[in-house]
Amino acid sequence: MFFSVLCLLTWAQGNSRYVNPFIGTKHMGHTFPGPSLPWGFVQLSPDTDTVPYSTGTGYNPKVYEYCAGYQYKDSTIVGFSHTHMHGTGHSDLGDFLLMPGTGPVKLNQGTATHPDAGYRSRYDKSSERAQAGYYTVFLKDYDIQVELTTTQRVGVHRYTWKSSGEKWLLLDLVHGIYNYDGKVVWSSLRVINDTLVTGYRQTNGWARQRFIYFAMSFSHPVKFYALLNQDRELYNGFWRRWRMDENFPERSGRRLKAVFLFDLQNNEPLTVKVALSGVSCQGALKNLKVEASPYSFDEIRYKATKAWDAELDRLTIEADENHKVIFYTALYHTMLSPNIYQDVDGCYRGLDGEIHRADNFTNYTVFSLWDTFRGLHPLMVLLKPSLSADFVNSMLAHARQSIHGILPVWSHHANENWCMTGYHALPVIADAWIKGIRGFDGYEALQAMVRSATYQPYEGLGDYMRLGYVPAQSSTVSVSTTLEYAYDDWNLMRMAESLGNDSLARVFKGRSLNWRNLYDFESGFMRPKLSNGHFDKSFDPLDTQGQGFIEGNAWTYSFFVPHDPKGLIQQMGGEMRFVQRLDSLFSVELPEQYYANTEDIDKVGIIGNYVHGNEPGHHIPYFYNYTHQPWKTGETVEHILMTFYSNAPNGLCGNDDCGQMSAWYIFSAMGFYPFCPGSDEYAIGKPFFNKLSVKLENGNMLNIKVKNKSRHNRFVKEVWVNGKLLEQPFIRHEEICNGGEIIFVMDSRM
Amino acid sequence: MFFSVLCLLTWAQGNSRYVNPFIGTKHMGHTFPGPSLPWGFVQLSPDTDTVPYSTGTGYNPKVYEYCAGYQYKDSTIVGFSHTHMHGTGHSDLGDFLLMPGTGPVKLNQGTATHPDAGYRSRYDKSSERAQAGYYTVFLKDYDIQVELTTTQRVGVHRYTWKSSGEKWLLLDLVHGIYNYDGKVVWSSLRVINDTLVTGYRQTNGWARQRFIYFAMSFSHPVKFYALLNQDRELYNGFWRRWRMDENFPERSGRRLKAVFLFDLQNNEPLTVKVALSGVSCQGALKNLKVEASPYSFDEIRYKATKAWDAELDRLTIEADENHKVIFYTALYHTMLSPNIYQDVDGCYRGLDGEIHRADNFTNYTVFSLWDTFRGLHPLMVLLKPSLSADFVNSMLAHARQSIHGILPVWSHHANENWCMTGYHALPVIADAWIKGIRGFDGYEALQAMVRSATYQPYEGLGDYMRLGYVPAQSSTVSVSTTLEYAYDDWNLMRMAESLGNDSLARVFKGRSLNWRNLYDFESGFMRPKLSNGHFDKSFDPLDTQGQGFIEGNAWTYSFFVPHDPKGLIQQMGGEMRFVQRLDSLFSVELPEQYYANTEDIDKVGIIGNYVHGNEPGHHIPYFYNYTHQPWKTGETVEHILMTFYSNAPNGLCGNDDCGQMSAWYIFSAMGFYPFCPGSDEYAIGKPFFNKLSVKLENGNMLNIKVKNKSRHNRFVKEVWVNGKLLEQPFIRHEEICNGGEIIFVMDSRM
Repeated sequence: MFFSVLCLLTWAQGNSRYVNPFIGTKHMGHTFPGPSLPWGFVQLSPDTDTVPYSTGTGYNPKVYEYCAGYQYKDSTIVGFSHTHMHGTGHSDLGDFLLMPGTGPVKLNQGTATHPDAGYRSRYDKSSERAQAGYYTVFLKDYDIQVELTTTQRVGVHRYTWKSSGEKWLLLDLVHGIYNYDGKVVWSSLRVINDTLVTGYRQTNGWARQRFIYFAMSFSHPVKFYALLNQDRELYNGFWRRWRMDENFPERSGRRLKAVFLFDLQNNEPLTVKVALSGVSCQGALKNLKVEASPYSFDEIRYKATKAWDAELDRLTIEADENHKVIFYTALYHTMLSPNIYQDVDGCYRGLDGEIHRADNFTNYTVFSLWDTFRGLHPLMVLLKPSLSADFVNSMLAHARQSIHGILPVWSHHANENWCMTGYHALPVIADAWIKGIRGFDGYEALQAMVRSATYQPYEGLGDYMRLGYVPAQSSTVSVSTTLEYAYDDWNLMRMAESLGNDSLARVFKGRSLNWRNLYDFESGFMRPKLSNGHFDKSFDPLDTQGQGFIEGNAWTYSFFVPHDPKGLIQQMGGEMRFVQRLDSLFSVELPEQYYANTEDIDKVGIIGNYVHGNEPGHHIPYFYNYTHQPWKTGETVEHILMTFYSNAPNGLCGNDDCGQMSAWYIFSAMGFYPFCPGSDEYAIGKPFFNKLSVKLENGNMLNIKVKNKSRHNRFVKEVWVNGKLLEQPFIRHEEICNGGEIIFVMDSRM
Repeated sequence: MFFSVLCLLTWAQGNSRYVNPFIGTKHMGHTFPGPSLPWGFVQLSPDTDTVPYSTGTGYNPKVYEYCAGYQYKDSTIVGFSHTHMHGTGHSDLGDFLLMPGTGPVKLNQGTATHPDAGYRSRYDKSSERAQAGYYTVFLKDYDIQVELTTTQRVGVHRYTWKSSGEKWLLLDLVHGIYNYDGKVVWSSLRVINDTLVTGYRQTNGWARQRFIYFAMSFSHPVKFYALLNQDRELYNGFWRRWRMDENFPERSGRRLKAVFLFDLQNNEPLTVKVALSGVSCQGALKNLKVEASPYSFDEIRYKATKAWDAELDRLTIEADENHKVIFYTALYHTMLSPNIYQDVDGCYRGLDGEIHRADNFTNYTVFSLWDTFRGLHPLMVLLKPSLSADFVNSMLAHARQSIHGILPVWSHHANENWCMTGYHALPVIADAWIKGIRGFDGYEALQAMVRSATYQPYEGLGDYMRLGYVPAQSSTVSVSTTLEYAYDDWNLMRMAESLGNDSLARVFKGRSLNWRNLYDFESGFMRPKLSNGHFDKSFDPLDTQGQGFIEGNAWTYSFFVPHDPKGLIQQMGGEMRFVQRLDSLFSVELPEQYYANTEDIDKVGIIGNYVHGNEPGHHIPYFYNYTHQPWKTGETVEHILMTFYSNAPNGLCGNDDCGQMSAWYIFSAMGFYPFCPGSDEYAIGKPFFNKLSVKLENGNMLNIKVKNKSRHNRFVKEVWVNGKLLEQPFIRHEEICNGGEIIFVMDSRM
């Protein structure tokens, strides 16, 4: 009591107060507004709709909007579920939806246009408020104030009924994100006593076989409950002798819903704590007991805020309130995934489906590596090296448990979902290693990298190893894949060099040059090549999909040689022609036909033919640094920072992609960017704030200052790192990783 | 090599050589012929058909024949699966069916009439041979000699292809006993390397949510494999990029089958070892490693034989070969369940779905308690007290893990299936305790017994506690249930008395008299009573089902007061009328209409109106001991022993019911029977063999001898126990449990 009264009243909030969780919730950001801890497992958030993943006739494109379960424009809330993806372009999860209500109980959700047909409720946007670690909304149809907060593994709900009537809480085990009939292959519920319920569900979705367990406690005893199965029970046998629908304490099936009734006074809140586990109900019970049982809603909310402050206060900026909101929300968004994926006792479900214990590391899941190898992981290498080591260890555990023996491609909740292309765990590992992060076994890592880079059944890889490129016949994304493999191979080379394995380094140095095999001197583009060595005739350099590319066209992908920029410049005819090409990228307009029917390009995020909402171009603005016009980097970066990120629900111009878009913002705002993860260099851009300081994990400060900036002095003239003038527009990691000072001196001349 | 050659050649087989696993495989015995160890988890046996549990229109009565997966009459074999129930009248299991073949691979089973339409094979009965721990058959359609043996947790197959052609092995994860579409809710396969495969399946059947895992090793490397899913894959997403059907090492879904091709010479055998676990694939791998990996097929077969000899050699009889076969097969059949249900490391899946470790006991499953409390469990109390303690500890663990807090009713594989009536764990526990078995916590047991006997939602129990009987409105089996509750309550009283809880004993003594509440003086029968206290008017004392009774009619159930025989005799009008009633039971013919349409009464097992194939009457032949005509017990028992048990596939006149029918045989052949488990008495019958000796678990011998027996001297005149003449036809357990001598002196006078 002393704690809650005194601390909560006197609590001085840090930078978490600048977080606006609604940024990205409108249109394409695919963010969710509900509470999470940094890298928390539980991400408890309102779901405003549940469009089915597929209709009778196949994939339903509308489902894409609901990757995070939420769209800002919606005026009804279906309920509050405990797991979400941050900013992805495909989805899953939405586990264990709770919805409180009054009056007659409805078991189905209704629709946005007919909310009264189901248990969903209308709400006013004005009643909705979200902070880092806290969310509240007023449900108009039921007169209920909803508040949400969370620990790492326990979502905490506080429901306050404002008017009288039967007070119920509905638990829907069928609900899910990217849902479809049959996705829940099995589920189960057990009412242990009148304040404790456990259960699990097993789903077949993006994660093909996912198990998730919960333990849920109530602050008030249930007075009546019903565990219902809306499925035909194929076999009930001797089970029939029970009255199943009234206070019967267990139920299993594929379409389970539960209703709990409570005797509560008006304004007497009900607190519901829902612990999750990927291991077992016992695991969930342990998580509940350790993280939530001893604490009140307010205490947990307080701790959540403090946890965010602890991360966000490490970076300070000199900026107006609006830009602080944009900056700290971006930083917040870089810390929503990967997610911790183990119980409080260290046990977790591995990729092999078995229960393991994480010894000497903390296990994480949700690796959207095609996106995050670029900026998100390098950002954590700088800000949180110990966390980076945990990420690598988690990926190595994945490789050990993989039936293929390989590192993750896109993994979540003990499953490999095989999304996107490449084997981009390699740059994540090499980047961490090259930048001095230890705490994982480099030799084991190298072996796993080799296995990933030589697993022939993987998309066109066998052909790639034989031919030096992925032939168009082997893959619809043969060019993207070839270029990414070559870059990933370069990372393997770097790792092998560092560990003294020269013969391996030589092999992969050779492979890293494979990008050349798809460069067509005639058209000046990377383009699909057939297995007979001839380029495919049907080729449109503006087309993005299915013609050899993914999430980028030939214009964009032709620049995807981050590990050999000089080589590429030469290949493209030398610096002058190269700069022209770059300039064209940012000026030649992409005709609307090339994105009108794609789901992942937002017109507002385009500069010419450069699509900031998709990742393959994220390094391109910094490509000018390899020419004699590096100032164009600064100009382009500043334009992007100013134009494509804003403090508004539609403040992201594309999927945040597990934080990659936001990581790009944070790096670029600092004035540099990891052009080529796996190298130890950052390319200089243009700092966005006059002062920005970072408290590194080792306690040292890295202070970034801008001198002489004015409306006219818009170009970086000099960069001083710890008193030393840079000769090239690149900073090396070791120059800043122990702190110090970076001074950008601005000037009016380019 | 030394071991296998020398030991196997010189091996002198014990009583296991008398076991004929085909007894009971024809018609109603529901036994399986394949190998098991005593109380083994793996029971590997040929399945000759797989009638679906339900057709489009509901329950398919033909499925009943295939409770054990096998009918002797069948001329085709579908394959060899690893789990079976012994002698049950409802079923489940049939996990992980393997079938070897040659030529074109077929994925479906075909039918008995069209075997060529599927992978099943014809076989000749003459090629089929079964022993304790070994089975062999020749598959005509493929020219393959099949041999099976087993450890506790690992089924071992040896397939010898006799002719050339593509040699394949099919693994069918869809196959099951009491199967229906959708029973497999999920399954998964992983090819770890070319000699090792793991997987699991999760079924929704009699066990509503059952998980079973395997690890399978091959003695020769697989040269090609295909993991196939015959289901529509609801979601395959990014998974599509693989060629799934060729050597792709993992697959999940609901209709999985796998085909493995081998390069083998003709006559070069393939040994396949399949370890099971209820815990995890890791658990199965451990079981494989410990129990099977180091040993050859022949060594494992040798150990299996020795394991059976160790149990069977403890009883010796003086008998002809034919009766030795009947006797030792019956003894064998008493040792096929309950089944060990934990991995080699002591881990097991509990009723709560969680993984537990069995500390200080061994965990067993398959408790068909309504059947086995009568004779099977008392037999183990006498023969294997330590095992009885394990059974009790397993049931106490079940109660701890039960959401209801109660002891098992009918449980298997971490599920309660709620089959049959009563709470007959109580007599099992009380019988063990009263007969001096310790090694479990009596106080915990008593508490669990009270919880079981007072769990009001359980079938009519709330009404029973209020009214003193289960009213006809509350249950279709109200009379059976009332009588069984009263008997079970008496057992609770016995346990409470023994532990000094007098007040509890008084309460349950009162409840034990509830049988009186359903006795109708007018008709002289136990009969259904309405909740208003009046007997139900519609009442046919010969009807067995749905009218208040289960597996017995009013004639039979009216004798179900084993704990108060004197009281019943008095209620029924005194000894003279009672004996007339008993005589009538064994002489008044049961008209065929009463069993023509029931699945569980075999005409050959009927004496008058007494149905030996169903359990409720098993104590009745011994009821004469409570009158002045105890010789009629001996006459009836001898008739049953001689008539209803034979050395033939149809040698059982009803379901063996997890060994209860066989336990009745063993006890009765010894000359006594536990008329009322929970008392310390055995009722004297008539010994079947002139000499029978039992080596007790403590090493002492119990020698049973018959003197002066001849064609004319057919009546037991005197019984001497350790030199003391019995005054009544009852032996107390403590008089024999430390061994000694029982001498039956026969005479020509009744």
